[in-house]
Amino acid sequence: MIQEKQIIGFDFSAEGTETFASFNPATGANNDYLFYKVSNAELDHAAVKAAKAFQQYRKKSGVEKAIFLEAIAEAILANAETLIEVCCNETALPKGRIEGELGRTTNQLKMFSSLLREGSWVDARIETALPGRAPVPKPDLRFMHIGIGPVVVFGASNFPLAFSVAGGDTASALAAGCPVIVKAHAAHPATSAIIGKAIQQAAKNTNMPDGVFSLLFDNGIDAGIELVKHPLIKAVGFTGSFKAGKALFDAAVNRPVPIPVYAEMGSTNPVFILPQALRERGTSIAAGYAASVTLGVGQFCTNPGVMIYPEGNPAFQHAVKNEFEKTNGGVMLAPYIAKTYSSEVSKRLDVAGVEQLAQGQTGMGSQDNYANSVLLVADKKVYNQNPLLGEEVFGPSSVMVEVSTKQEMLDIAEQLTGHLTCTVFGTDEDLANYVDLIDILEQKAGRLIVNNFPTGVEVCAAMVHGGPFPATTDSRTTSVGTAAIYRFTRPVCYQNLPQHLLAPELQNQNSLGIFRLVNGTLHQQDLT
Amino acid sequence: MIQEKQIIGFDFSAEGTETFASFNPATGANNDYLFYKVSNAELDHAAVKAAKAFQQYRKKSGVEKAIFLEAIAEAILANAETLIEVCCNETALPKGRIEGELGRTTNQLKMFSSLLREGSWVDARIETALPGRAPVPKPDLRFMHIGIGPVVVFGASNFPLAFSVAGGDTASALAAGCPVIVKAHAAHPATSAIIGKAIQQAAKNTNMPDGVFSLLFDNGIDAGIELVKHPLIKAVGFTGSFKAGKALFDAAVNRPVPIPVYAEMGSTNPVFILPQALRERGTSIAAGYAASVTLGVGQFCTNPGVMIYPEGNPAFQHAVKNEFEKTNGGVMLAPYIAKTYSSEVSKRLDVAGVEQLAQGQTGMGSQDNYANSVLLVADKKVYNQNPLLGEEVFGPSSVMVEVSTKQEMLDIAEQLTGHLTCTVFGTDEDLANYVDLIDILEQKAGRLIVNNFPTGVEVCAAMVHGGPFPATTDSRTTSVGTAAIYRFTRPVCYQNLPQHLLAPELQNQNSLGIFRLVNGTLHQQDLT
Repeated sequence: MIQEKQIIGFDFSAEGTETFASFNPATGANNDYLFYKVSNAELDHAAVKAAKAFQQYRKKSGVEKAIFLEAIAEAILANAETLIEVCCNETALPKGRIEGELGRTTNQLKMFSSLLREGSWVDARIETALPGRAPVPKPDLRFMHIGIGPVVVFGASNFPLAFSVAGGDTASALAAGCPVIVKAHAAHPATSAIIGKAIQQAAKNTNMPDGVFSLLFDNGIDAGIELVKHPLIKAVGFTGSFKAGKALFDAAVNRPVPIPVYAEMGSTNPVFILPQALRERGTSIAAGYAASVTLGVGQFCTNPGVMIYPEGNPAFQHAVKNEFEKTNGGVMLAPYIAKTYSSEVSKRLDVAGVEQLAQGQTGMGSQDNYANSVLLVADKKVYNQNPLLGEEVFGPSSVMVEVSTKQEMLDIAEQLTGHLTCTVFGTDEDLANYVDLIDILEQKAGRLIVNNFPTGVEVCAAMVHGGPFPATTDSRTTSVGTAAIYRFTRPVCYQNLPQHLLAPELQNQNSLGIFRLVNGTLHQQDLT
Repeated sequence: MIQEKQIIGFDFSAEGTETFASFNPATGANNDYLFYKVSNAELDHAAVKAAKAFQQYRKKSGVEKAIFLEAIAEAILANAETLIEVCCNETALPKGRIEGELGRTTNQLKMFSSLLREGSWVDARIETALPGRAPVPKPDLRFMHIGIGPVVVFGASNFPLAFSVAGGDTASALAAGCPVIVKAHAAHPATSAIIGKAIQQAAKNTNMPDGVFSLLFDNGIDAGIELVKHPLIKAVGFTGSFKAGKALFDAAVNRPVPIPVYAEMGSTNPVFILPQALRERGTSIAAGYAASVTLGVGQFCTNPGVMIYPEGNPAFQHAVKNEFEKTNGGVMLAPYIAKTYSSEVSKRLDVAGVEQLAQGQTGMGSQDNYANSVLLVADKKVYNQNPLLGEEVFGPSSVMVEVSTKQEMLDIAEQLTGHLTCTVFGTDEDLANYVDLIDILEQKAGRLIVNNFPTGVEVCAAMVHGGPFPATTDSRTTSVGTAAIYRFTRPVCYQNLPQHLLAPELQNQNSLGIFRLVNGTLHQQDLT
């Protein structure tokens, strides 16, 4: 049995008295890893170290931080074989998926290292002095973004690599110049430990300060809430359930000194099928939909939980039913997730006007932790009147809702809460006829999609993985893509500072060659 | 007696039963204006109209919104003579100050209209599709900022024009594409009504939708809280006291659907004097400091409430004392403000170790509403141990604190909470010796100033008027300058949309000529 400890900066610590085990959700058996639960003293120690490390880390250049991020990616890849094995064992996710996610994770780190090497992300703005201006002189003013301070990141169960210890939140916070304390997800602690050690090693190898990264273990919610309440913590990144995300948000905004919480809490990602597309491409839409709903046992934030489509198309409904019946369920990430899935589906079936249309193939998983894919149909009035049906079911389930008229489709769109994505399938003619639908959906989501399914989140500069509440607690941001860095920064204006006290980004000589807004003009030149 | 009504979009309304009067704070006499207090039904009506107007206003082009902002500036200037008279009468601020503030107000509107006409502020990002990419194709993804929805703005007492009905918050929200509901400040309702009518007229003249702007009157806090809680409101801009700002923040974050509150709540704007500068320029620093503290009867968010300086300089302390004794007090904006000022100064004098060093000239104002400038000295230990001394006194008062060593100065800096500004006076040699002080102060403020006084906030792209809590409720933003627009926007990603459904900012043809990040390269060209 391997006893894993807290990673607190460059140290390991095991002050806690309780432990919990890593387990295999496919078999229910414990793995060979045991984890100490973090103590409050350890948690405080990590926060104090992070705050101290911030004083050095915030002064690292973009290139230095880029080297650190690249070293993390390398250190993770150096352990790829073990990592993939342990991760598959802990999550029951297939090897191909974990390999893909590993690629995404290291690509995210490299994306932020490229952003740092290029350097323009700081949004440098320079207004030069006009000492002779009447009635008052204009001072020299220079603006850029700097890191906000130590950030707490919560690992997500459904992305054990890409949204966990070295995932998007960690990469963007480190890129912003903020030390990170990760609370490992209890569903993949051994995976977390491997990644955590890789980050620790990378930090040492690239001369980063002790405390720039810590990794803490807990299988409850107490340590997480304590971290969010810790006065030295300045922001929080989270991906998970509404209940947990909202609890962290409430704790953060009601602190004596409130801090921002970026909680991505999932959504139902509604899909609207327009009439002509349904007639022309119904079969392929049906197949794509069934695949998108059941991909990875439905354990994606962006899997489509509801489809709205025009009535009078029994062949289409039949096609979706057929496709669904071909799908396989699978082992879920953890027993509590499978249990919640099952009870959430049951709750919906208890609503009068909701029926089960199809069920996927029953597979071979352990009964306790296995999810069947389930397709429901709901009467449109019932759907509109039951907020429950608009809430996410985490797992391979979706609801089909037939509407009689365009207005009924618009009414459902209007009543949507905030979502990560909204999707429309339509021909050019459909889309021209449904501009008003597009217009409504643009206000409901972080990402508006036409003729693609929402699963699959591209990691790039143009991505928004976010959206209005309750999809997230802060619609002004994204947790995927380069814009995610601004969650952990704030702008500072420097008035009348001598050159040597300014960061290179703001000095007259533009040694970094970044884009800067100088007296209203964006360019990469030096100031003369 | 003129009876003023609520401005609800293009209508006027007077459903309320209670009224309150505009009064002259210099004489205590009521003016010729009486205001109906807004009813809950009117407030709801304004919110409903704003939400409806948003559907049209959000689709206005940058140029259309720019024309609206310019029309507001023109409509205000068309009433300048009456406006200045009424405003001076309501605020007791001198004519020159109000004239200057009027210029600032119209310049702010023009700054945002220029930002809109140029157009690059939307931060357009385009990633073109790679349909042949393996293992999965890359979709076409396009990103830009859009308006967040109806915004509530609270007029500030101390800037009856520049931070009130058509002030910075309103200008930035309208620029972002958001309808605005202003809750007029009860200390200058007649001024507010004149500006409100000018905005209403400008909206009509430039074909803006009914509801893009409303102005509501209340002399209590109930209407404000109700507005913040209204489900159709999406964000809040506020400048004022900590108590009021924090109450709005608490109401907003504890809504069923939380919304952002940008509350600028003032600060003490600490000023640090370094040894050599003190020796070489003590006399001019003393004069500048006394002037900065007492400017406009100390009613600026950025007036310096504390000075930290090295001991052993009795001549310097004497010079500050002398300069202070030459200053005049004056009539404050409202009796409750003068009363609070007086009691806050008394509270500090009650602290053992705090003494009055100087008092300004006693002037001619009505006794009730008149403030004397007061200079205090506090023992360094007493200052560090009494959080009260670090809190803002709104008015012409400041505390001097002597320190024996550099470390003591650093200790005081470390203990600072968040401030709008931190200032250091030093020679080149001083600054080289106090890099660690600069480093601490950068983390405490939105604006870091060297060898200037903090009063005077330049309206430009590089300004940050913000800072860590409790200076504001959101350190990631500014309420002055072009970056203020991002308080009222959120990014949206459009995946695979046909050209005709994209905003001009994101179409292949860059008809607006804006800067766009296209596949990682920032340029102004069309996509080929």
